[in-house]
Amino acid sequence: MTDPQEPTPPGRAHPAAVADATLRRLLAQIEPIGRDARTGGYQRLAYSGPELELRDWFAGEADARGLDVHEDRAGNLWAWLGGPGDGDAVVLGSHLDSVVQGGAFDGPLGVVSAFAAVDALRAPGSSPRRPVAIVAFADEEGARFGVACGGSRLLTGQLDADRARSLTDDRGVSMAEALRASGRDPARLGPDPELAGTVGVFVELHVEQGRGLADMGAAVGVGGAIRAHGRWRFDLAGRADHAGTTRLEDRDDPMLRQARLVLAARDAAARCGGVATVGKVAVEPGGVNAIPSRVQAWLDARADDPDTVRAIVSEVARAAGADAIEESWTPRVELDAALRTRVAACVDDAPILTTGAGHDAGILAIAGIPTAMLFVRNPTGVSHAPDEHAELVDCLAGVAALTSVLEELACR
Amino acid sequence: MTDPQEPTPPGRAHPAAVADATLRRLLAQIEPIGRDARTGGYQRLAYSGPELELRDWFAGEADARGLDVHEDRAGNLWAWLGGPGDGDAVVLGSHLDSVVQGGAFDGPLGVVSAFAAVDALRAPGSSPRRPVAIVAFADEEGARFGVACGGSRLLTGQLDADRARSLTDDRGVSMAEALRASGRDPARLGPDPELAGTVGVFVELHVEQGRGLADMGAAVGVGGAIRAHGRWRFDLAGRADHAGTTRLEDRDDPMLRQARLVLAARDAAARCGGVATVGKVAVEPGGVNAIPSRVQAWLDARADDPDTVRAIVSEVARAAGADAIEESWTPRVELDAALRTRVAACVDDAPILTTGAGHDAGILAIAGIPTAMLFVRNPTGVSHAPDEHAELVDCLAGVAALTSVLEELACR
Repeated sequence: MTDPQEPTPPGRAHPAAVADATLRRLLAQIEPIGRDARTGGYQRLAYSGPELELRDWFAGEADARGLDVHEDRAGNLWAWLGGPGDGDAVVLGSHLDSVVQGGAFDGPLGVVSAFAAVDALRAPGSSPRRPVAIVAFADEEGARFGVACGGSRLLTGQLDADRARSLTDDRGVSMAEALRASGRDPARLGPDPELAGTVGVFVELHVEQGRGLADMGAAVGVGGAIRAHGRWRFDLAGRADHAGTTRLEDRDDPMLRQARLVLAARDAAARCGGVATVGKVAVEPGGVNAIPSRVQAWLDARADDPDTVRAIVSEVARAAGADAIEESWTPRVELDAALRTRVAACVDDAPILTTGAGHDAGILAIAGIPTAMLFVRNPTGVSHAPDEHAELVDCLAGVAALTSVLEELACR
Repeated sequence: MTDPQEPTPPGRAHPAAVADATLRRLLAQIEPIGRDARTGGYQRLAYSGPELELRDWFAGEADARGLDVHEDRAGNLWAWLGGPGDGDAVVLGSHLDSVVQGGAFDGPLGVVSAFAAVDALRAPGSSPRRPVAIVAFADEEGARFGVACGGSRLLTGQLDADRARSLTDDRGVSMAEALRASGRDPARLGPDPELAGTVGVFVELHVEQGRGLADMGAAVGVGGAIRAHGRWRFDLAGRADHAGTTRLEDRDDPMLRQARLVLAARDAAARCGGVATVGKVAVEPGGVNAIPSRVQAWLDARADDPDTVRAIVSEVARAAGADAIEESWTPRVELDAALRTRVAACVDDAPILTTGAGHDAGILAIAGIPTAMLFVRNPTGVSHAPDEHAELVDCLAGVAALTSVLEELACR
């Protein structure tokens, strides 16, 4: 796919060709892991079998490059080239976990691209002047335990370890139990300010999760800000009863409140200029001929500013007649302006994008770490779904951009 | 609790005392089977562990009385005292399975009461002039495979065996697989007109599932008619996408249609004088930050006449923008008028009740078998829920009524 324009020293592969080969090989290696043959979607939930397999794969790739691998107290994987150093490390990466029935690119593309960029950087035989690391943050999607960016939040002290340990998945398994089942010590979970302090800059490459780049005709974009976003749970209590014999006026049916909640969320988001989604519902007992005793509904709400999100959530709570229980919250994050300027200078004609998707980059930015993001074009904008896609040529453009950024940050 | 008013022959227990002892003992025996310690609700789904345990218990009780036990081609259990005969058998019974988180009385009270009535009948040493059987119909609730009264429908040819075998539970296990897993041959499943033809009359005692008797101050009632009722599934297809980055105008979110469906069901039922309930919903993929690709919703609708039910279902389908897929349907059933007169004559001051709950008695009535029902007072009307209740004194009144009916039908 690449057409090297510059001569390469004898005996050395051209950096772009190396990056190309790494990207293709690594994407192919992980392609079958956690893939649902029926839908083509991915199931790589935190500390589940496929996700643990991806962790082994990460460690193997790091080993093969002579990088020092370790897992931090928050479950995040690090692969070091030199360092960690004393606060000037250049860290690239993203995450390996997926949502339920997710796509192939959301997360892994950033990790694979980081390996490709490091390979390209080292291909001419040059060494970076600063420590470089590749990171795979744990449990970014929060698809299993409900809190997004669990690994980066724990690392930076934005998620309490006791709360994290007690989070449970849909089968009632706590994060502590899941850690133990995978051979980890849940007591170790916690923040690591020393490790976080070694990160001079963090650059996350990610597939775009909307159609911004596609509409602008650009292969790669640079992150500007991350919209304010959060998750809330509503526990709607009712009274279980027989669906055939209980008069309408005698019912306390929480499904009616769930319905009003769903419609109120859409109305409020449309009026306020945000987005709101109810993507998960749990009904007890869930019998066709039984009025539910309880319906739980989860709201995902996002907007440019926190006040708008709060307004949406308040309206939904009023319509549902129930309290909004906050499961996670991230304020609007402006990514570091100076770093953005340096990054943008490495990528020709890259538009600046504000994104509605949360990322570990946002969590690190809140913790005061200068962070930047690169986005790769998604032709349909579809994400968190099996149809999520990025063309190989765009992925290669992303790797080229990330390589330039890495050279700029680690070698100048 | 009983106070025998009539002298009993020396060496023989008084029938009422026998019935009292049987009812108490049998209710206590099955009390722990399938009980959820947390909620007090019962989980006795067809061919699950607790339901199979109840089948063993039924066979043991039948054996202890010298009754001939067999399981028919539809999975229903029969215990015969004489017979089956050539069409004049008096059959009592109900079902042993429950809904998810059901009550202790819905179904088992009728089976236990049948054993108690047979014990009372035989206590004086008398023998019935006609064959008598106790039956426990399989899968009455349809809580596992979606079709209510599966056992009686199969027996009478109202449910196709191929369709029954291919019905699946929430985990994707088919009825055929569940039968095989419990040591049964799914190929055997099918109608048995010869067996059905031996039933001269069927009398089902059941806890009331509303507050009719409580409001009237009566312990026992006699069934008049069963309202028309059915179950419909709606498969609402949408497009999976990212909850944070997909613009509202680009979404095809099936949860919105589910919400409109729920509210339309209530509105239509209120306007038409029926009842309608959405008690079960399945969301795919079910992630907090993913717009669903599909939502399935199940509608239970009932009314005095079939046209009203059909009108409700049509309105709901229109609101949901989807077809109503019929999973089961039972027209209004008038229980046999002549039999009802004989039964009512056995029970002092028993009101006649029309019920909104489906029963195997209704399925047998559709098949042309004269059937009758006795209802036992439910002080709160709550059913299909852990709080379902009937006072012991009312259960004993029900057994006394059932014993009188059995004497009238089997011994006169």
